[in-house]
Amino acid sequence: MEKTRGYGSLPKATLGRLHMYYRYLSLHQRDFVSSEEMGGALGVLPEQVRKDLSYLRYKGKPRVGYRVSELRKELEEIFGVELELNMAIVGAGRLGGAIANYEGFERYRTRVVALFDKDPAKVGTYVGKFRVRSVDELPEAVRELQVDVGAICVPPDAAQEVADRLVESGVKAIWNFSPSQIKVPPEVILRDEDITRGLLMIKHSIAVRSFRGDDRTPEL
Amino acid sequence: MEKTRGYGSLPKATLGRLHMYYRYLSLHQRDFVSSEEMGGALGVLPEQVRKDLSYLRYKGKPRVGYRVSELRKELEEIFGVELELNMAIVGAGRLGGAIANYEGFERYRTRVVALFDKDPAKVGTYVGKFRVRSVDELPEAVRELQVDVGAICVPPDAAQEVADRLVESGVKAIWNFSPSQIKVPPEVILRDEDITRGLLMIKHSIAVRSFRGDDRTPEL
Repeated sequence: MEKTRGYGSLPKATLGRLHMYYRYLSLHQRDFVSSEEMGGALGVLPEQVRKDLSYLRYKGKPRVGYRVSELRKELEEIFGVELELNMAIVGAGRLGGAIANYEGFERYRTRVVALFDKDPAKVGTYVGKFRVRSVDELPEAVRELQVDVGAICVPPDAAQEVADRLVESGVKAIWNFSPSQIKVPPEVILRDEDITRGLLMIKHSIAVRSFRGDDRTPEL
Repeated sequence: MEKTRGYGSLPKATLGRLHMYYRYLSLHQRDFVSSEEMGGALGVLPEQVRKDLSYLRYKGKPRVGYRVSELRKELEEIFGVELELNMAIVGAGRLGGAIANYEGFERYRTRVVALFDKDPAKVGTYVGKFRVRSVDELPEAVRELQVDVGAICVPPDAAQEVADRLVESGVKAIWNFSPSQIKVPPEVILRDEDITRGLLMIKHSIAVRSFRGDDRTPEL
């Protein structure tokens, strides 16, 4: 992890674009890539791509572009891909069940180790490969299973209480899938996953286009 | 929709922050808000907040701030909140079921009108309040139910095929929840909802902090 030093001050918007580039490079296997190529595919100006990548230690070559293996290696460092994390899901409804059984986390060294619910009718049943545990076991399980991240998949009115319990139990980060805004102490990382955000971005594009009548796709 | 004219060229990052402000104002009821207050709560510099809000027609007042009702009204316009949309979900697994039955869309005048799956064993069963339809009915149903947005909740290897069918059936936008990158013609709006993105943002914060040892929460 030593090398992640120095990336702590990356602006949020830059970090978001770096993630786009990382995703693009993961999906398009090749040896070299140019800022024009990647920018063109992602709807980002080539100058912006070059500016963003200038935060990296690895520098591309004029007229040749960036060696993809080098770019990916450094982007993996920035995103702490190698860091091993244990995650617990609170809320065993459809969303919690979907997150718990999502197959894409292992690639990022993240393992779901527990699924909790407060409904006694659900406790002890299986949702996919997980046996649902009672939230009463949460503090003990978080410590025993060394849970780093707690994902909140409960109804909005229960979200803060669940967050408090997770914080007390010592998680490093909270991933909030509920639509309510929760508060955590400054030493805990909070990431809000707001699904209506995507919907509003789509609505914006449809609204903008409905009078403009052209076919340019705004970059989402 | 007339008034949405002129917002079509908002930079993506600005749009993302405008959504943060909109969300903040929806959750914090008050008459006036200052850029310091909102920026402080959201981890955005007050200057940045003022710059972002300068894209709006409504201007705040020095020393008084912004009237929340005016800000919200214009942000609702920008995000096309009043626009009525019909959405269809393809893929009736856990994630598709969670999206179909998510309660937060109605607030944004968006109605889920159909849920599809290709598995004959699922077709005809209920997932929450939705009877699962066969994907073979998709083109007809999209036209009959006037579906505007198609949400893709199928496994990655089936995503492009589903996208093609949705496009052929005439949807305006595709909301891709699968982890694979899909292609659509330029006249169709595409929004990728990549759940691992949130995870990598969390991993970045944990990695950065693990050597820095301080308590500053990077803004996620």
